[in-house]
Amino acid sequence: MFIHRYPQKETWAELVQRPVLKKEEVSEIVSEIFKKVEQNGDEALLEFSKKFDSAQIESIVISRDEIDQAEFLISNELKKAIQEAKENITTFHNSQQPEIEKIETTNGVICWRENRAVEKIGIYIPGGTAPLFSTVLMLAIPAQLAGCKEIILCTPPDKDGNVNPAILYTAKLCGVTRMFKTGGAQAIAAMAIGTESIPNVYKIFGPGNQFVVAGKEFAQNYGVAIDMPAGPSEVLVIADQQAIPAFCAADLLSQAEHGSDSQVVFISTDLNVFNETIEEIDFQIKKLPRNKLAEESLNNSHFILLNSIEDAVEFSNSYAPEHLILAIDDFQKYISSIQNAGSVFLGNYSCESAGDYASGTNHTLPTNGFARNYSGVSLDSFVKKITFQELSEKGLKNLGKTIEIMAEAEGLFAHKNAVSIRLKYKK
Amino acid sequence: MFIHRYPQKETWAELVQRPVLKKEEVSEIVSEIFKKVEQNGDEALLEFSKKFDSAQIESIVISRDEIDQAEFLISNELKKAIQEAKENITTFHNSQQPEIEKIETTNGVICWRENRAVEKIGIYIPGGTAPLFSTVLMLAIPAQLAGCKEIILCTPPDKDGNVNPAILYTAKLCGVTRMFKTGGAQAIAAMAIGTESIPNVYKIFGPGNQFVVAGKEFAQNYGVAIDMPAGPSEVLVIADQQAIPAFCAADLLSQAEHGSDSQVVFISTDLNVFNETIEEIDFQIKKLPRNKLAEESLNNSHFILLNSIEDAVEFSNSYAPEHLILAIDDFQKYISSIQNAGSVFLGNYSCESAGDYASGTNHTLPTNGFARNYSGVSLDSFVKKITFQELSEKGLKNLGKTIEIMAEAEGLFAHKNAVSIRLKYKK
Repeated sequence: MFIHRYPQKETWAELVQRPVLKKEEVSEIVSEIFKKVEQNGDEALLEFSKKFDSAQIESIVISRDEIDQAEFLISNELKKAIQEAKENITTFHNSQQPEIEKIETTNGVICWRENRAVEKIGIYIPGGTAPLFSTVLMLAIPAQLAGCKEIILCTPPDKDGNVNPAILYTAKLCGVTRMFKTGGAQAIAAMAIGTESIPNVYKIFGPGNQFVVAGKEFAQNYGVAIDMPAGPSEVLVIADQQAIPAFCAADLLSQAEHGSDSQVVFISTDLNVFNETIEEIDFQIKKLPRNKLAEESLNNSHFILLNSIEDAVEFSNSYAPEHLILAIDDFQKYISSIQNAGSVFLGNYSCESAGDYASGTNHTLPTNGFARNYSGVSLDSFVKKITFQELSEKGLKNLGKTIEIMAEAEGLFAHKNAVSIRLKYKK
Repeated sequence: MFIHRYPQKETWAELVQRPVLKKEEVSEIVSEIFKKVEQNGDEALLEFSKKFDSAQIESIVISRDEIDQAEFLISNELKKAIQEAKENITTFHNSQQPEIEKIETTNGVICWRENRAVEKIGIYIPGGTAPLFSTVLMLAIPAQLAGCKEIILCTPPDKDGNVNPAILYTAKLCGVTRMFKTGGAQAIAAMAIGTESIPNVYKIFGPGNQFVVAGKEFAQNYGVAIDMPAGPSEVLVIADQQAIPAFCAADLLSQAEHGSDSQVVFISTDLNVFNETIEEIDFQIKKLPRNKLAEESLNNSHFILLNSIEDAVEFSNSYAPEHLILAIDDFQKYISSIQNAGSVFLGNYSCESAGDYASGTNHTLPTNGFARNYSGVSLDSFVKKITFQELSEKGLKNLGKTIEIMAEAEGLFAHKNAVSIRLKYKK
C-alpha cells in the first residue's frame, strides 16, 4: 500500500500509470494456437483441453441433456436471485432501444438510423476459481434483446470435464443458442475461425486471462470484432468526511479479491476517514477466503489524501477508472465533471457489487485507462446502426447544386454526374 | 465485368468475397515508421515529408495565417455549398444526442447513462488526387457536437508544401483546434504517440491508403482507439423494372471512380434494366476524367441477374455492402429485411453522392464486409456512454439479498460483504 499525503499535481501522471504488461511472448503462443485450431478444428480443441484444463473429454459440444440437468444442480435460492438480476438487467438494457427518428434535413431529404443485430456473436466465460455466471447475464441478455440470431458460449471444462451448472442454467435462461466446453485462446480461435462443431461469429465478448485477451486481439485479424481491449479490473473510491470507513474498506476489498493484479485507488479529503478506512481494511481482510489475492493487490494500491473533491475528480478523470465510487455528500454536484470512467456509483449505498450483479447496469467495462476512449458493453455493442436516406425528386432538386459543387471541387466528376443526370432527366 | 445470370445460391459465397489484401510487408514498414516517430518526433515527420511527399517544409504546424488565408483561395460558391452541407450534417448528427433517461430497475435503485466526449481526437485527411474536405465535415462536425476538447487534423502537404485551402477552410469552420502538414503512417504515429508539435490523442479517425490503414491498426498497440477497420469503398445497387438505367450506371460509376480497387456490384431482376445499365456505363464512362480508374474497377465488378428482390436482398445481406442503393418500386417493404449494410439509399433519387456530401448522414462507413459487425461513424463514435447508479438505503435493502446470494455462488465473499456490511450497519 502506497500512501500519498497531498501529492503535488506534477506527480499525478506517475500515480495514474498502470502496470505494463508483457505481450510479445503471449502473442507468439496465441498465434500458434490459432494456427492449430485452423488446421485441426475440434481435434485441436480436445487436445488443448487435455493440455491446459487437464480434462479428457470426448466432445466439446455441451449436450442438451447437460444443459437441462443444470437447473437441478443449483439451489432454488440462486435460481431466484439470477432471475431477479435478469429482470433488472433486461429492464435497463431494454431502455437502450432507440426509437426511430426520421429527420428532414432539407425539404425532401429524409435521414434516419435503424438498429440491426450483429447476427452471430460469441461469449467467452472463463473457468478457474470463480464461475462467472453473472457475466453470462451481462452478455447474453443484451445479445438476445438486440436480436442476435446465433449466441454461442465457450467456457473451459474442469478436470472432470464438467462445466459449472450455474453457468449452464444462466445461459439457457438468457437464450444462448449453443454451448461448448473449450477455453483459453483456443476457444477464441474457434469462434473466430469456426470448427466442425463451433460456428464462426462476427463479434466476440467476454473476459479472460492474458491468453484470452491476446486471443481476442489476434481474432481481429480474421475480421472479427471484439467488445473492447482489456486489462486488470479497477476501482477508484472518492470519500469525504461523511463516508463510512467500513463501507469504503469493503468496496476496496471487493475489487482487490479479484486477483493480485487488481487495481485499487482510494482518495479521501478527510484524514479520519482516510486512516479509519486503512484500519478497517486490516480488520476485514482477515475474514476473507481470498485474502491472499486481496493482500497482493493492496500491496500495489495507492491511498491518496487530497485537499478537495474537485482535485479528487480531476485525479480520477486523469486515471480513468473502470469503476468510480463517489462516497461523498453532494455527489449530484460532481456528476457533470466526471469525464473518464466506466461506471459510476453514487453515495454510500451504491456499492460496486450492486452493478457487478443485479442493479441492471452492465459489468463489462473498460479498464487499463480505456475509459478515456471506450464505453462499457451495452445494447449498442450487439447492433450496427445503419443509416437510411430517402430523397424525393424535389429533395434532390433542393440539394443537387450543393452536391455538384462539392463533388467537382473534389475532382470527382462521376459523383457530380450521378446528380446532374437526375436533375436533367425528363420522364 | 463479370456477368452472372441467375447464379445458384451455392455460388454466392464466392461472389461475396473481397479481394485479399497483402498485409505483412506493409506492417513491417509501418512498424519502422512508428519507431522513427517515437525516437525523433517532429524531425522524423519532416524527413518523411521530404521522402514520401517530395515536400521540403520547415514546420509541420499549419500556421494561423495559412488557415485564415484559405477562405480567400476558394470560391464563394464552394463556401456556400460547404456551409449548406455542414448544416444538414449538423442537424442529423445533433439528433443523435440522447436524452438522459433514468430507470428505476428496483424500488430505490436508479440507473442511467450519460455521454461524455472523447477528450482528444485526431482526424486524418488523405492528400493525393481528391482533396477530401467532405471528410473533414463528416469527422469534425460530430466531434465538435460531442464536445471533444482537442480536435486535431493531419494531412500531407503537396510538393510545394501547401495544403488544399478547401480542407483548411472546412476544418476552421468545423472547430478543428490544430492542424498539421504530415501524412501517411507517420501522421498516425504522431497522433498516437505525440511529438513536440502534435499532441497524442485518444482516438483516430479517417480514411487513407494501405499504410494509413495499417498505421491505424498499429496505433491500437499504444492504447489508441480507431473509428473502424477499413478496406476499399463499395456500392451494391439493386434495381427492378422501374429503375432508370442511366441513374444506375451513374451510381456505379461514381463508386468505380474512387480507385481501381473500388468494389461495384449490380443486381437486377429485370433483363432490360440489366442490359441497358451496362450499355449506359459504356456510354457515360467515356466522358469521365477518372475513367481509367473506373474502368479498372469495373473490370473486377459483378453484374448479377436474380429472380426476385427477396433474393437480391439476401445476396446483399451476405455481401454486407458499405453503400446499398435500392432502386426499386416498393423499397419500404424491404427495409426491415436489410441486415448488413453501412448506409442505405432508397428509391431512384437517393444517389450515393447525396450521402457522400450533403444529405446529413455520415460517409465514414464500414467496408470489406465489416458492415456485418461495425456501424458507420456517428455522434456515438466521439463519446463514451458512462453508466451511473444511485441506490438508496432502501434500494440496497430491496436488492441486497440477491447480490449476496450471487456473490457467494461465485465465491467472491468480499463482494458479498460490501452488501452485508451495509445491511447490518446501524447509524
